[in-house]
Amino acid sequence: MPLIRFGVSIEKDLLGKFDCFIKDKKYTNRSEAFRDLIRQELVQKQWKGNHEIAGAITLIYNHHKRELVNKLMDIQHDFGTVIISAQHIHLDHDNCLEIIAIKGSPKDAQKLSNSLKSVKGVKHGTLSMSTTGKDI
Amino acid sequence: MPLIRFGVSIEKDLLGKFDCFIKDKKYTNRSEAFRDLIRQELVQKQWKGNHEIAGAITLIYNHHKRELVNKLMDIQHDFGTVIISAQHIHLDHDNCLEIIAIKGSPKDAQKLSNSLKSVKGVKHGTLSMSTTGKDI
Amino acid sequence: MPLIRFGVSIEKDLLGKFDCFIKDKKYTNRSEAFRDLIRQELVQKQWKGNHEIAGAITLIYNHHKRELVNKLMDIQHDFGTVIISAQHIHLDHDNCLEIIAIKGSPKDAQKLSNSLKSVKGVKHGTLSMSTTGKDI
Amino acid sequence: MPLIRFGVSIEKDLLGKFDCFIKDKKYTNRSEAFRDLIRQELVQKQWKGNHEIAGAITLIYNHHKRELVNKLMDIQHDFGTVIISAQHIHLDHDNCLEIIAIKGSPKDAQKLSNSLKSVKGVKHGTLSMSTTGKDI
Repeated sequence: MPLIRFGVSIEKDLLGKFDCFIKDKKYTNRSEAFRDLIRQELVQKQWKGNHEIAGAITLIYNHHKRELVNKLMDIQHDFGTVIISAQHIHLDHDNCLEIIAIKGSPKDAQKLSNSLKSVKGVKHGTLSMSTTGKDI
Repeated sequence: MPLIRFGVSIEKDLLGKFDCFIKDKKYTNRSEAFRDLIRQELVQKQWKGNHEIAGAITLIYNHHKRELVNKLMDIQHDFGTVIISAQHIHLDHDNCLEIIAIKGSPKDAQKLSNSLKSVKGVKHGTLSMSTTGKDI
Repeated sequence: MPLIRFGVSIEKDLLGKFDCFIKDKKYTNRSEAFRDLIRQELVQKQWKGNHEIAGAITLIYNHHKRELVNKLMDIQHDFGTVIISAQHIHLDHDNCLEIIAIKGSPKDAQKLSNSLKSVKGVKHGTLSMSTTGKDI
Repeated sequence: MPLIRFGVSIEKDLLGKFDCFIKDKKYTNRSEAFRDLIRQELVQKQWKGNHEIAGAITLIYNHHKRELVNKLMDIQHDFGTVIISAQHIHLDHDNCLEIIAIKGSPKDAQKLSNSLKSVKGVKHGTLSMSTTGKDI
């Protein structure tokens, strides 16, 4: 797609902070960083609305807790339509990292994430809110 | 481990908001929600310090951009010690969701995440900061 | 489901070999091993017919070969309906192990497997013929 | 690496079958197919010896059988050094496809595979014998 160039006015101070951010995040120029900020906004909007989204849920738990393992598996099968696949990593003899790839409605994704994270014995959980890449 | 019970004083207003949060996040009781808030703090501290951490990086990109695909692969091989494995999902004919499972130093993890996200053509990227489950 | 018990006549010699097989494969008894042999037959029949199947394709390749990486990605997007997700492991600085989870028609699965394995530069490839678990 | 060219004598009949095989497997020429046959032999030799290998184990099972799920998880944690990560796919409300990426000694890999496949309730299991790509 053709690039359109336009000027931006910005306070010296704020620009300084933006340039620090760019350097820290390893962007090669301001336009690239600016484009990413816009896209970040768009993705957040998709999650607030009804747009189909994609993302990932991470869970840390001790697999020796039987009830926990079975409950996590049941919840995942109940939300079958949102889950694409899961990656399971045995971190050590006790701890597991499970990463669940999701695609579907933002509402179902958040409901699934909340259900999994609130299971007793889950040590930590995160929800990565990303996008299917369409319309972005 | 034995549970210790203690009292907490809290403004009525704030407790109301906490109870909404609990309901929203599907916790069964206040103690469970409270324990999770503490663990959340501890995980954040691990990422700020030098503690070994675990987590996930998500990337959305169009695989038809050749240079992009090759660059992402090169960066991942350069950070081989931090990466456990990656999950690749073909969202549609153009868009890919890649989820990289990581374990190592917080510094390396963030450097890897920044390097990948700043590659031209990556539409969206997230870094899930989680834990190895040890000391938590 | 209720178990049905019935007798089997078998040459002493052949039974000896079967018992070695059982011990080697860690089965706890003859019935268990026998059930698995039957299921193995059924799965093979599903792959020869038109039954929906599941399985995995493994590929070993050097990711420094650009053309190869791009070609593998293109083929996978062309067979999007058969592929669920892929697991990518950076074995060392050069070699990658890619494991593609598949579900669909046996014909498409074999076509995909042949297409991927025949790409110049793929060092080794396998096709695990398994089942969706239905009707077995 | 430089290619060396040499002649091969072969019965007309056998060559005909080889050419069918090439067409079926989508190879672009005889040399490419021949190279793959040699590599296939080398990989088999690695699995019979003590060479470090890579590969994948697939399992199909009904996750509603609690004992089964817990047993599979325990065995995997006992063989932690051989397992890199696992991909878990919820095929339907009952059936799961689990694909375990492995790297290590051929003996451990086969022991792990046998232990998993013989767990009561596993409907089907396969072991893909591949290679780390070194020395091939």
